[in-house]
Amino acid sequence: MSLFHLIAPSGYCINQQAALRGLTRLRETGHQVNNAAVIHRREQRFAGTEAERLADVNSLASLTTADTIVMPVRGGYGASRLLENIDWQALTARQQHNPLLICGHSDFTAIQSGLLAQGNVITFSGPMLAANFGAEEMNAFTEYHFWLALRNAQYTVEWQGQGPACQSEGTLWGGNLAMLISLIGTPWMPKIENGILVLEDINEHPFRVERMLLQLLDAGILNRQNAIVLGSFSGSTPNEYDAGYDLDAVYAFLRSRLSVPLITGLDFGHEQRTVTLPLGAHAVLKNTKEATQLTISGHPVLKS
Amino acid sequence: MSLFHLIAPSGYCINQQAALRGLTRLRETGHQVNNAAVIHRREQRFAGTEAERLADVNSLASLTTADTIVMPVRGGYGASRLLENIDWQALTARQQHNPLLICGHSDFTAIQSGLLAQGNVITFSGPMLAANFGAEEMNAFTEYHFWLALRNAQYTVEWQGQGPACQSEGTLWGGNLAMLISLIGTPWMPKIENGILVLEDINEHPFRVERMLLQLLDAGILNRQNAIVLGSFSGSTPNEYDAGYDLDAVYAFLRSRLSVPLITGLDFGHEQRTVTLPLGAHAVLKNTKEATQLTISGHPVLKS
Repeated sequence: MSLFHLIAPSGYCINQQAALRGLTRLRETGHQVNNAAVIHRREQRFAGTEAERLADVNSLASLTTADTIVMPVRGGYGASRLLENIDWQALTARQQHNPLLICGHSDFTAIQSGLLAQGNVITFSGPMLAANFGAEEMNAFTEYHFWLALRNAQYTVEWQGQGPACQSEGTLWGGNLAMLISLIGTPWMPKIENGILVLEDINEHPFRVERMLLQLLDAGILNRQNAIVLGSFSGSTPNEYDAGYDLDAVYAFLRSRLSVPLITGLDFGHEQRTVTLPLGAHAVLKNTKEATQLTISGHPVLKS
Repeated sequence: MSLFHLIAPSGYCINQQAALRGLTRLRETGHQVNNAAVIHRREQRFAGTEAERLADVNSLASLTTADTIVMPVRGGYGASRLLENIDWQALTARQQHNPLLICGHSDFTAIQSGLLAQGNVITFSGPMLAANFGAEEMNAFTEYHFWLALRNAQYTVEWQGQGPACQSEGTLWGGNLAMLISLIGTPWMPKIENGILVLEDINEHPFRVERMLLQLLDAGILNRQNAIVLGSFSGSTPNEYDAGYDLDAVYAFLRSRLSVPLITGLDFGHEQRTVTLPLGAHAVLKNTKEATQLTISGHPVLKS
């Protein structure tokens, strides 16, 4: 049984019921959940004032509980405002002995990227309290992969990806595409070469997904990686005006310009069914006609 | 009377009626309009194939007509795909004697920014064929300011802006916020210091506007300017979840972090009422309690 420590650096959780359901589910399955008071906090669309949300993050540096999973209540918007005042040095120092297992996604990608860029800190891109643990029914695949990642020093995610046969390895990084894009040019954008970049997003039209991927390409970031892996792009629905232009058209166009493999189809992102991936860990990617395998190691794991 | 040369580097014009109305309006007021065949061109959501849209832009380098206004039919999405293959050198050379007066906005900002970044080429951020000249009623303010900019070596735009009293000058640059953001890190992002950066957008929620402005701030771009001027943010409507968070909240937050004046309220952007601004020209900005004035010079003008 594990200890969860909640934070709320982003948007107010309008679906309070989901957050409380997540809380109950974790407690009923034997876990301890601290700092649940952040669930109710609100300031306009944010989960509290700037000071409150910033304190959620900066106080992690002095958190003394052992073997702790840190998890945001939800995403939304708000992490971007905090980046300038996060104490990256103190957080990085905290992680060097007995690291916190920090897990979240979506808007939280900004903070995860900052930790990786500023201190090489590995964090998990995976479920959060409200959307995942608070779902009416917890997705078994998601739950399995969450504990798989947090409990095993090496593990493999397998799926049937689309893309060229390849075998490559490097630092696994990425997360939410729009959030990563919003960091280009800032001190919080990881500068990773020869990596495996994994991306997902929600409610972005295919042309916006393409424009963001093109920016990563034109900034030289995609072709400096060893492979690109794409997860879910939820709600990326074409309309009549698109006249056949869709995500597959985006992928085909991108492949015509890319010099590295682009592998799609990973269950990773805003769908209920999602894997957990430690950003900053080491990954080996193998794609054949039969299967795609991503084997991950080098991330912190729970001790008990 | 002037000569217009149409191009269509971006999205297909779904409102064909508007484009044809614009064509008729220009011709009936005595102007000549060339290359109108691009209006009907379509490939999925784009105004033609990559090759066709790219040729629209690259063939401008060999356009021999004098005193020509180059104007896109409309914006949408598609310019981003062309940037890699645009012949910036040839276009820059073409502009050095008898320059084309290139005018457009929205998605076209990508090409305008590329011209400024690659060759210091001044282009006009202003009306396009379908949305503006093709409006059911041509906006008189917009028409007046279009010809004001294209016919006068120096002119002044005046409005009642919100923001601190200030007087500053520098290179005027910017355009559509989302498009400018999409160029950060690429070779087509202008590297302008001590400038006056003017920005507008459409259909972006206030939190997205804020996230984009924060990126410009965190990348060091805003504080390297002498002033920031904000135009229209059309359709940027808060919802119930925002609970009071709106564009004014965005501006207030940004001002708390900015070290340079932020002046808002300019009629510039996707509204029917919009000024025309030469990106890359010299601007003097003066803001007092009584009025805001932007005096512009150094741009190419029509000879007749």
